[in-house]
Amino acid sequence: MQPLRENTVFVGNKPVMNYVLAVVTQFNNGAEQVAIKARGKAISRAVDTAEISLNRFLEGVTKKEIVTSTEVIDTDSGKTNVSSIEIVLTK
Amino acid sequence: MQPLRENTVFVGNKPVMNYVLAVVTQFNNGAEQVAIKARGKAISRAVDTAEISLNRFLEGVTKKEIVTSTEVIDTDSGKTNVSSIEIVLTK
Repeated sequence: MQPLRENTVFVGNKPVMNYVLAVVTQFNNGAEQVAIKARGKAISRAVDTAEISLNRFLEGVTKKEIVTSTEVIDTDSGKTNVSSIEIVLTK
Repeated sequence: MQPLRENTVFVGNKPVMNYVLAVVTQFNNGAEQVAIKARGKAISRAVDTAEISLNRFLEGVTKKEIVTSTEVIDTDSGKTNVSSIEIVLTK
């Protein structure tokens, strides 16, 4: 039995195609589900990653759910809130 | 009977609190539902708008749905794709 490990791609400040490639590779390697996560300004790029992956590269994969939330992170100047997004793609 | 007009806040490049104020005002004016929409880099700010509105200002309002899509827009150098998001808040 395979463990129910969720495949996750964390989106940061690199070019969007890096993350698209990561998502597509995970599906090509047999993943049934891939979660795309990002925080702050990278949220826009996470949406781009999902849209480009679905529209150009992935057949038979759909958006399962999109969740946004607020995370509290520690910075040099104290705690601050940052928005986050999780986009789950599934076969 | 009131018409079923959907209240929409389009998020652009202004400070996020401008959009939070617009959302909160619409609910205070009796809206049952407000849609927050954005394209491209403003998507992150749209998520911030929803999170700040819900966490700090709105009681009894929840996220109803989050939809992302790809829109084709005309620019000087031809057609281009841009990601968009719609976050629907409801009482």
